[in-house]
Amino acid sequence: MATKELTRTEELMNVIRVKIANRVLNPSDRLPSVRRFAATMKVSPSTVVEAYDRLEAEGIIRARRGSGFYVTGADLPPMAIAEMGPIRARDVDPFWVSKQSLETDDTVLKPGCGWLPPDWMPHEALRKALRSISRSDDSLLTDYGNAQSTLALRRLLLGRFAEEGLNISTDQILLTTSGTQAIDLICRLLLRPGDTVLVDDPCYFNFQALLRAHQVKIIGVPITTTGPDVEAFERTLKEYTPRLYITNSALHNPTGASLSPQTAYRILSAASAQGMTIVEDDIFTDFEPNLSPRLAILDGLTRVIRIGSFSKTLSASVRCGYIAASPEWIEGLSDLQIATSFGGPSPITSAMIVQVLAGGTYRKHLDEVRHRLTLARLDVAKRLTALGIKPWLMPRGGFYLWCELPEGVDSAILARRCMEEKIMLAPGNAFSTSQSAAAFLRFNVAQTQDPRIFNTLKRLMK
Amino acid sequence: MATKELTRTEELMNVIRVKIANRVLNPSDRLPSVRRFAATMKVSPSTVVEAYDRLEAEGIIRARRGSGFYVTGADLPPMAIAEMGPIRARDVDPFWVSKQSLETDDTVLKPGCGWLPPDWMPHEALRKALRSISRSDDSLLTDYGNAQSTLALRRLLLGRFAEEGLNISTDQILLTTSGTQAIDLICRLLLRPGDTVLVDDPCYFNFQALLRAHQVKIIGVPITTTGPDVEAFERTLKEYTPRLYITNSALHNPTGASLSPQTAYRILSAASAQGMTIVEDDIFTDFEPNLSPRLAILDGLTRVIRIGSFSKTLSASVRCGYIAASPEWIEGLSDLQIATSFGGPSPITSAMIVQVLAGGTYRKHLDEVRHRLTLARLDVAKRLTALGIKPWLMPRGGFYLWCELPEGVDSAILARRCMEEKIMLAPGNAFSTSQSAAAFLRFNVAQTQDPRIFNTLKRLMK
Repeated sequence: MATKELTRTEELMNVIRVKIANRVLNPSDRLPSVRRFAATMKVSPSTVVEAYDRLEAEGIIRARRGSGFYVTGADLPPMAIAEMGPIRARDVDPFWVSKQSLETDDTVLKPGCGWLPPDWMPHEALRKALRSISRSDDSLLTDYGNAQSTLALRRLLLGRFAEEGLNISTDQILLTTSGTQAIDLICRLLLRPGDTVLVDDPCYFNFQALLRAHQVKIIGVPITTTGPDVEAFERTLKEYTPRLYITNSALHNPTGASLSPQTAYRILSAASAQGMTIVEDDIFTDFEPNLSPRLAILDGLTRVIRIGSFSKTLSASVRCGYIAASPEWIEGLSDLQIATSFGGPSPITSAMIVQVLAGGTYRKHLDEVRHRLTLARLDVAKRLTALGIKPWLMPRGGFYLWCELPEGVDSAILARRCMEEKIMLAPGNAFSTSQSAAAFLRFNVAQTQDPRIFNTLKRLMK
Repeated sequence: MATKELTRTEELMNVIRVKIANRVLNPSDRLPSVRRFAATMKVSPSTVVEAYDRLEAEGIIRARRGSGFYVTGADLPPMAIAEMGPIRARDVDPFWVSKQSLETDDTVLKPGCGWLPPDWMPHEALRKALRSISRSDDSLLTDYGNAQSTLALRRLLLGRFAEEGLNISTDQILLTTSGTQAIDLICRLLLRPGDTVLVDDPCYFNFQALLRAHQVKIIGVPITTTGPDVEAFERTLKEYTPRLYITNSALHNPTGASLSPQTAYRILSAASAQGMTIVEDDIFTDFEPNLSPRLAILDGLTRVIRIGSFSKTLSASVRCGYIAASPEWIEGLSDLQIATSFGGPSPITSAMIVQVLAGGTYRKHLDEVRHRLTLARLDVAKRLTALGIKPWLMPRGGFYLWCELPEGVDSAILARRCMEEKIMLAPGNAFSTSQSAAAFLRFNVAQTQDPRIFNTLKRLMK
């Protein structure tokens, strides 16, 4: 492994880069003093000096004689995408994990990937749906909108929500092309550049990439095994009055944590008191053995917006997500969806989802997947623990294990080394707004089956 | 019909509303004086006074004693969607046509609709593609990205471009979920709120809705039968230094005009001199009998970005478009697409398109569609002319006829009346940034077959 001192400096540099990218530090803002930053980060002042010097060499910050270091704004040219650019260390860049997952070929093992392997998915049901659609009405195959297929899917969702105790109407659901597009539309409706948005620390890495495209300030709240740290949450609300909080309440990505009832109640109360909107990303709901607390259900969709998709348990190829919210918001979101993508998901793919969900085999498929995941989770946890890689929590469902590496091992460096050997990992700091997760890796237990993974980890960690 | 005086007042009110929505008039800007506006619009000063009074009653503008009327900004609350809101008269709102087209049921006749009827589309080829995909690899059915299907589609596009004399590489093409999403991504990459964007006047109504969501200033350039008015174009470039120009070069929506070689050359030269980027929306290309001048081809994709989709000739249900541009832009757009929708179109739908395009029957289908459209165009033009509704141009292809109504007939009022009788029209001002097209309607000749349409028009125009 690289020397520890070098890693620390890089770590500090990344903390500053992420603060700039997340607009916590803006052009001409002053950086923390060397002494204070050294104390916060528990490093020697000389490490901070080295990090600041190197960032200055990159042109990202500038020293002013006698008054400290300032953000230059050199890395924030006037393009939306460039707002996501300042992180140079691609191995902790939120994009790195996305790109490696999406673009690498089948010869790469992907314990860091965010979805199930193909052979865990309900292919027979999907093939059957395709055959059935090949015999359907002409209009489904060629028209822009097919009111029937989208209405059928919205009704199915209503039925599922009603089972959970959430009774809403079809005008409270909008179908989207993905869970990500759902969040993006909500951000476009509710946010303006410069607003503050709260996320969990760590959180799904793409939340950061998405929010940077919206040019908002991103603040992280530390996550505990029962959801966000409530006191930190309340303090952050007072200090920053954020417009939005985006979270996974159940089987949180990357940690696998689920909200306790008390945390759910206090988070919702605090958000209400402050008039803050919450986006609850419920993408892992079908992996739960039974329903854990949900903000959207407690709240009845007044200030909470629920989003989800079918990518994790049915098919990521069909590209379909949804937003459930108050009818007024849905109307605005629907107009915005027409303006920016001329409608929702392909009617063909919504019809496929309806066929699979209504086809009777989907619940059995979920039971099987959940059972396999339980076994895989126990097995992978045991094998990783034997290597000194410790699960932070044994989640109640899903496919993630958030694991702490042995002392002195940096996950970004390990990920880079493993990639050279065709093993794609998800290093902790890709998920962390505070860059405090260098010692963590997110494992997908369903994608961590090949013995080569454990052997390589063992060898490279030495 | 309603009295002419009322129509005029409403017309003026809409001109002001659109100027505010398009950010040509911003909060606290002064409105033109009554005398000047009356002269410009060729109405009596009392009509302007009435229009201003009514807008003041709506709270959109405010009189200041002795100094005229000012924009209040009351209709521009801090939400992206609200930026599209100020137009109250929903019958000339760009959204009106979209919503009526997408949401009304099959009992409504839709001469105003922007696509072909289902029975004009290649259903057998699509059904065959679906059956074939139902037998394909597991990964195509369930994975997020399927490099093969997207690569195959990009290669097919390259082949078509090469036939046109445009030789580019696969890293210059990005697949999107629609032509609209293609433009939206480009706007997100290149525009910031407050930038100026040029469109044709009239232009595809959704360009305005989309650009309003980006909070940019929208300026229209009058269109002629051979493309934009070159002198007005050059003048506007000097006056406003726009960042972007969005246009249909061939079979322009709504007019059916195509660029002449001279216009193409002068537009591209003027854009180059000014450093302006052009988005060429090539969505109607497959309807052309033979290739007319294209800015993207002349330019070789340096400052021109080409976008297109398969919605008009293959299927709107499959939801797939593309962007062809310089590799640097494609890289930025691809990152932005991952951040905001976690990837491109459904791999299943891209595979469907590949199958149909490569299947051998697509060219025959296009030949047939073009032949049917030629006959329908001549027939509809004749029947409309008999009612005093005159085509502004006989387009060389496509399904649009841009027609002028008899003197004194207002297309918005006619559209509202027709809608009550289940006939959906596309009134001219939905396309016009200057609101100067009240006397025009856009007809889709393939959707204007039912005799009830002509009978109803005749009766209501009396």
